[in-house]
Amino acid sequence: MKIKDKILSISKDVLDKISKNKNPQLKMPIRSLQNVKYDEKDGFFELNGKIKERTLTASTIKTFAQTLRMMSLSKDLIENDDLATKREVYYVSKNWEDARFNEQPESDSIMDDFEAMMEVNREQIGFIPGEHGGAVAGSLIVIDEDKETGKKVRIDCTKMGSGAYSVPASVEHLKFETNAKFVLAIETAGTFERLNKHKYWKKANCILISMGGVPTRACRRFLRKLSDELKLPVYVFTDGDFYGYMNIYRTLKVGSGNAAHINEFFCVPNAKFIGVTPQDIIDYKLPTHPLKDVDIKRGKDALKNDPFVHHHKEWQKAIKLQIQMGKRAEQQAFAKYNLNYVMDKYLPEKLKNQKTWLP
Amino acid sequence: MKIKDKILSISKDVLDKISKNKNPQLKMPIRSLQNVKYDEKDGFFELNGKIKERTLTASTIKTFAQTLRMMSLSKDLIENDDLATKREVYYVSKNWEDARFNEQPESDSIMDDFEAMMEVNREQIGFIPGEHGGAVAGSLIVIDEDKETGKKVRIDCTKMGSGAYSVPASVEHLKFETNAKFVLAIETAGTFERLNKHKYWKKANCILISMGGVPTRACRRFLRKLSDELKLPVYVFTDGDFYGYMNIYRTLKVGSGNAAHINEFFCVPNAKFIGVTPQDIIDYKLPTHPLKDVDIKRGKDALKNDPFVHHHKEWQKAIKLQIQMGKRAEQQAFAKYNLNYVMDKYLPEKLKNQKTWLP
Repeated sequence: MKIKDKILSISKDVLDKISKNKNPQLKMPIRSLQNVKYDEKDGFFELNGKIKERTLTASTIKTFAQTLRMMSLSKDLIENDDLATKREVYYVSKNWEDARFNEQPESDSIMDDFEAMMEVNREQIGFIPGEHGGAVAGSLIVIDEDKETGKKVRIDCTKMGSGAYSVPASVEHLKFETNAKFVLAIETAGTFERLNKHKYWKKANCILISMGGVPTRACRRFLRKLSDELKLPVYVFTDGDFYGYMNIYRTLKVGSGNAAHINEFFCVPNAKFIGVTPQDIIDYKLPTHPLKDVDIKRGKDALKNDPFVHHHKEWQKAIKLQIQMGKRAEQQAFAKYNLNYVMDKYLPEKLKNQKTWLP
Repeated sequence: MKIKDKILSISKDVLDKISKNKNPQLKMPIRSLQNVKYDEKDGFFELNGKIKERTLTASTIKTFAQTLRMMSLSKDLIENDDLATKREVYYVSKNWEDARFNEQPESDSIMDDFEAMMEVNREQIGFIPGEHGGAVAGSLIVIDEDKETGKKVRIDCTKMGSGAYSVPASVEHLKFETNAKFVLAIETAGTFERLNKHKYWKKANCILISMGGVPTRACRRFLRKLSDELKLPVYVFTDGDFYGYMNIYRTLKVGSGNAAHINEFFCVPNAKFIGVTPQDIIDYKLPTHPLKDVDIKRGKDALKNDPFVHHHKEWQKAIKLQIQMGKRAEQQAFAKYNLNYVMDKYLPEKLKNQKTWLP
């Protein structure tokens, strides 16, 4: 109800101003890297608090009307317990006559403004991404609700056979029960399938999540909820390359610059990187691929520009080591020894020895 | 056991030849478009039966050894009821000394040869793709097996809440129970989420599958098994563009040229295309996007070169109509009317009127 009340209160403000023949205004934080700070304690990129005002004038009338329309649609969605993808919202606007969007980027931008204005994540105002949120297996019971009957639905992620539980686009309403000791977030579907098929989650008493590359919003939010609500540590296991370190792990842990207004809801500040580290490549004598120029550039950029890397000497050292080696290695490279080495040897060794992790 | 027996029999042949001081040979079908025919009755691209022989000579010794190594690995996988991704197989070869692969494409090519040689799909010889197989919700019980206990695991796809059942990379061992009347295979995760959230599967008594773009091998095989084993019709619902018609629907239904040796296992010849058709774009006055030059080229290519299109006048007519309109439309475009129009109006109307489908 809080969100609906906020929408109503903003709308009432606009109406009051209009009734008094004054120009109505909408206030929202500026969404850009210039308005971002990195607070080590909080652990994610945060907005600095600079505000922009959208005052109704001749030149802003269209975006102003579109923002109000978007708010009204959001209120409807919340009241009807429905959801709309960004794409659907764009199409809904086709019936807004002069306020319709011509291209989806316009509609996405207004949605981002509205999201920032409400200080919540988009899913809470009824808007969802058009993508799934990863696959889950292991010691976790997800508690959902049957929309028709209002009854609880208990989904036992130990009972999916060789398959998995597919996380929905919106996870706000989910509750959890578990006996697991940690969450293992895995980059590739291939490694996830191996660990799931052999029930590694049972042996290690954990929850396995397949991110499938850079985790989607729903996957990040799901991991965050597991971290918050179950107080579980989240360990991240990616390929040993800058894409795994920065695009996947760094984004999951502290967020990214261009979406700083939502990092608060999507980051998993307690996440730890357990591998594949540059040192693992050496210690486990892994088969490697040479770094390309673009990889080396990505590493050097991270050393130079990334506030997260600036804060962590360990990461600086690791990135330098990798650039110096000129090599990268994949999660599946442990298959060199035997197919289950990753499960029987590598992961148990790494989990026992926190010193080999990266922050 | 049949597959293991075949591996053993081929190996025995090789050994016999060597014992008699003769050159051992391996026989496999030629995998190329020149060795493909389209049989309307069978409904998918088939191999013509041309065979290539790999005889052990000085120049073929490495690929010959690699093929035998690959066969041996497959036998191990089958015996241990294990699976390996293509990527893992490549890394396993790093321990094959002189027979190791330098690049994964080499290893993939030998795997394709071996797959064609065995006349089965790769999953049956223990090799899986590194990707999930789509999400499932609705009136379906998937029967899997607990590897440790040997007990059956029943997964009820009506009890996933707002989430879904995530199809594993290998589906050969799965069995099914259902009361559903049909399967609806959906291009976008966004539309799937909408239909699932509102339990369209209950109202329409069907099984919903989210393909997430061009369906993966596992997703295609899963759909094929539903079609074969449950005798259910499969209806395909994609965006109204050539990518949806050809890359998604045509591939799902009849396969593609460059993987003809497996079309037999992966195609769903009974699949029907229910929308979005070019005529739907007109009839439902959908918001559209203009076709780009590359889209038009794709359409013209299909008219000119695609044996599937050559066989179906309806598709020729539809493609010509779309090129003439110069427009395409998306699944989510029905949101123009209201968010649930697709579920309350479009799909029920289409399902009632088979004349509006495409073959």
